[in-house]
Amino acid sequence: MNSIPLNKRIIFALDFDTVEIAKSWVIKLKDKIKFFKVGLQLFLIGGFDFLKWLKDQDVDIMLDLKFLDIPRTVNTALNQVKDYVDYITVHSRDVIMKEIPDEFKSKILGITVLTCFVDKNTNLEFGCSVDELVMRRAHHIVDNNCAGVVASGCETKMLREKFGDIIIITPGISLEKPRNDDQKRVVTIEEAFKNRSNYVVIGRPVYQSFNPIRTIDLAQEKIEGVLKKGG
Amino acid sequence: MNSIPLNKRIIFALDFDTVEIAKSWVIKLKDKIKFFKVGLQLFLIGGFDFLKWLKDQDVDIMLDLKFLDIPRTVNTALNQVKDYVDYITVHSRDVIMKEIPDEFKSKILGITVLTCFVDKNTNLEFGCSVDELVMRRAHHIVDNNCAGVVASGCETKMLREKFGDIIIITPGISLEKPRNDDQKRVVTIEEAFKNRSNYVVIGRPVYQSFNPIRTIDLAQEKIEGVLKKGG
Repeated sequence: MNSIPLNKRIIFALDFDTVEIAKSWVIKLKDKIKFFKVGLQLFLIGGFDFLKWLKDQDVDIMLDLKFLDIPRTVNTALNQVKDYVDYITVHSRDVIMKEIPDEFKSKILGITVLTCFVDKNTNLEFGCSVDELVMRRAHHIVDNNCAGVVASGCETKMLREKFGDIIIITPGISLEKPRNDDQKRVVTIEEAFKNRSNYVVIGRPVYQSFNPIRTIDLAQEKIEGVLKKGG
Repeated sequence: MNSIPLNKRIIFALDFDTVEIAKSWVIKLKDKIKFFKVGLQLFLIGGFDFLKWLKDQDVDIMLDLKFLDIPRTVNTALNQVKDYVDYITVHSRDVIMKEIPDEFKSKILGITVLTCFVDKNTNLEFGCSVDELVMRRAHHIVDNNCAGVVASGCETKMLREKFGDIIIITPGISLEKPRNDDQKRVVTIEEAFKNRSNYVVIGRPVYQSFNPIRTIDLAQEKIEGVLKKGG
């Protein structure tokens, strides 16, 4: 786990309105951060041209389009995007994961349960707790040999104990004060790494901070601190 | 229900590899069909330029990207696409549907349960039958005042009885012989309209037929036959 360089531990979420703003953030941050997430918002405006530009910056890319469709459609979409990025997200469902072609699997990250769900919601929608649902979906990912799971820091410890050496990526990170937004299952960056996430996804807490570079420096110091203790 | 013109009852799924092929099908079909579905495959290559071209053909558009993400991301994506299309699909979850801004809702179609799921799968994933899950998700759609539901023809009758005059769109249609592919909950076009779907989504059974125009003529005759009896 410690072999991942510090500048790839934070995956910076490029959740911006325009390609120009997204590019300016990549240029500003790329000495510090070598791993970026492109989600729906930016992909809809930037498309493959943006992905090509981003790859040319010599960084890793997580394409977070969270596919959930019939297997044929998911696999067609994966085939279209796979050569542009390092990782692609798919909502974890057994019926879908098991149909993903083997040659794509090293790039597939399975979404377990979105951070906007708490037990009240999963009980209503799925008749079980968040933890149970996360474990079930992680099984579909691991059993079908996909690359890793996306899960909140609340479930990371449980996942690590159960599944050992899988990739775990954690969105829903607070850097200082608690967040009050649509992400509900939130942990601090220290907790995420103490619970043995490999990577954290951070967007808003950095780009909304007064001094983003300083915020990243502090966040990376915190990560290093936890990893040193762990090692 | 009978006020929908016959040439909009079939939503033709433009599931093609290239924009050129998709355009050639629209041009070939647009005297017969005035409603087209753009899914992930085509949107990834054609993007907004294709949507603009398609709108210029004076047809209705269902953009079938099946969004499922945290509310902020879904709403940002909806805002980006809403002006280009008539309908947009979102996976129905209470936590997401209730956060969709009111001004978008007349364009939102909620996906209930993908046609690749059968009871065995939903029992595994969600601890309930397909029917139960479809009803729960249809409630989220109707209770949150969205435009309509996407559901297989197996559930249409139940939905119509429960929810009355909502829009129901049905994929997973066979025209002649039974289908043997990744869509499992499949009905014939007659069954879909007997069960009171408003629209059916058809792609493969048309574009894989030897004479697509004849296939559409026959399908529309069947629809007309059912609707006349119903009225």
